[in-house]
Amino acid sequence: MNVQADKKTNERPFIVDALQYNNWSEEIFKQMNNVGVAAVHATICYHEDFRQTIDNIIEWNSLFSKFNKFIIHGRTPEDIRKAHIAGKTAIIFGFQNCSPIENDIGLVEVCHNLGIRFMQLSYNNQSLLATGCYESNDPGITRMGKEVIQEMNRVGLVVDMSHSASNSTLDAIEISERPIAITHANPYSWHPAKRNKSDSVLKSLAESGGMLGFSLYPHHLNQKSNCSINDFCTMVARTVEMIGVDSIGFGSDLCQNQPDSVVSWMRNGKWTKSEDFGEGSAADSGFPPQPVWFSDNTGFNNILLELKKVGFSKQEIKLIAGENWMKFFEKSFASLDK
Amino acid sequence: MNVQADKKTNERPFIVDALQYNNWSEEIFKQMNNVGVAAVHATICYHEDFRQTIDNIIEWNSLFSKFNKFIIHGRTPEDIRKAHIAGKTAIIFGFQNCSPIENDIGLVEVCHNLGIRFMQLSYNNQSLLATGCYESNDPGITRMGKEVIQEMNRVGLVVDMSHSASNSTLDAIEISERPIAITHANPYSWHPAKRNKSDSVLKSLAESGGMLGFSLYPHHLNQKSNCSINDFCTMVARTVEMIGVDSIGFGSDLCQNQPDSVVSWMRNGKWTKSEDFGEGSAADSGFPPQPVWFSDNTGFNNILLELKKVGFSKQEIKLIAGENWMKFFEKSFASLDK
Repeated sequence: MNVQADKKTNERPFIVDALQYNNWSEEIFKQMNNVGVAAVHATICYHEDFRQTIDNIIEWNSLFSKFNKFIIHGRTPEDIRKAHIAGKTAIIFGFQNCSPIENDIGLVEVCHNLGIRFMQLSYNNQSLLATGCYESNDPGITRMGKEVIQEMNRVGLVVDMSHSASNSTLDAIEISERPIAITHANPYSWHPAKRNKSDSVLKSLAESGGMLGFSLYPHHLNQKSNCSINDFCTMVARTVEMIGVDSIGFGSDLCQNQPDSVVSWMRNGKWTKSEDFGEGSAADSGFPPQPVWFSDNTGFNNILLELKKVGFSKQEIKLIAGENWMKFFEKSFASLDK
Repeated sequence: MNVQADKKTNERPFIVDALQYNNWSEEIFKQMNNVGVAAVHATICYHEDFRQTIDNIIEWNSLFSKFNKFIIHGRTPEDIRKAHIAGKTAIIFGFQNCSPIENDIGLVEVCHNLGIRFMQLSYNNQSLLATGCYESNDPGITRMGKEVIQEMNRVGLVVDMSHSASNSTLDAIEISERPIAITHANPYSWHPAKRNKSDSVLKSLAESGGMLGFSLYPHHLNQKSNCSINDFCTMVARTVEMIGVDSIGFGSDLCQNQPDSVVSWMRNGKWTKSEDFGEGSAADSGFPPQPVWFSDNTGFNNILLELKKVGFSKQEIKLIAGENWMKFFEKSFASLDK
């Protein structure tokens, strides 16, 4: 490490964002580098099967080759530390659905070997493994779900319940021998969206060593796009009062430069012939505008400043910005066999 | 490492076998451990497409779990050294055909990330990349073949030309920026089989830093199943006179406990509606009997003794038994990007 790189590292915060799904570009990679986003958990699948997911990985491999000055594929916490020192951003692969493993538990290890580190057990709807947060009934983790959680625990693939229903989430926390994550959601008590999580879920999550990533997606925010930065950071402080400062981080759900057709794909995939508007409506079907203080990754600087204003210490802000996620990655990403 | 393990290591030779395709079992794994086979390049595909190859990987992952006392998945030379010290055998994945990458160059990197370390550019027939050794005409490496060799060089996937035709092999040696391998074949001048290699191919291979693995498959041996161990080891000595001692090792092509239906699958895959007998014939269509001195991995002990008798030094025998392959792996398996 040369002196200049070291200086650069010391000037920038160390940020981990546990969810983004951008229309990826050099501009966005540079933005992340400049802000100090050491790692971002990037969604590489919403509804794709295994083979289609491989195509997405091949596209990412092209990005890693083309933009190797700015990004690397992050498989371990060490990759993330190295990326930050080099002024780069580590991209951590994750699935928002279990569709890539199809009905084959053997694909869990194959996906981990390909560098996948997060998998949601369900995405809004019922899956083979768990119930989604938009279903009317939530019978909890399925027979296959129990087997797959055990296998995910073994290989080091994190169970993510961001889009899952409450019973299924509580079941997953109970069944999983390694801590689970809710990478991108907020407390339901602050903003009652179906995607936000009850206090009982959040308490169980924290007690089991799991992590919550606070979402900056307007449908998850009090007053949506008009949410104030003070309101957001005060919510963070209230959550810390409830579950402590060690189980929280960011999971912004940022979707920069995506056309509205993408949010429609997220919601509808190929499972319906009509149109589901998810958290939106027929009149408001597209991506909602981001709050002015978090339109892109530079917004993290605004949040870190505001967290200080609402009373967080420098050390607490470091934990929230990235170190809590790093501790979680340390205990989550490696295979138990090795 | 405890004293006993260390003692065990010192007693056993260090053997690398650059091709086996057994009906894998605990018995065979123990046999390899006992003999000191530190690594074996195991074929995991003859004719399968990508998704079918993934199923084969999943089967191997089950074997790694079930038989973790005896085998590990070998991805690096360090894995092999560690396996040997622990009294285990590292399994190196390889394809005898390019069918798993289908028509998609992006799958080369995906396969390397899944731990594949060898890929033949063709298997007896013409492929998208190169000509096989049973074709009448051999136009050499194709347009896609040139691109794929470059990509294999970049990611660290070894070009294996064992079942390819002569012009294609000479082309591959010329085009590839990293040394290539002929993992399992013998000199044509010793036994004129279509699968054996001309002196000019062997000389080019060695001059470019490539490796030849001597085959113990009867169809590749002088007098086939009746080949004597002295004849085999004298052939090794003659080959060393021609190309030196640094470019040779073993690639036994051992197929223990396989039914004859397997050799028929190797030869016919799904490419013909009639039956191709390859190196056999209608009257002799099954697996030929192994020479009595190499019926399984314990035969390596016979060969190492006989190599001494025909005049090889202790150090030369070490090179042939495993160290030449290890040096080759050191310069071949890692990505050039990292």
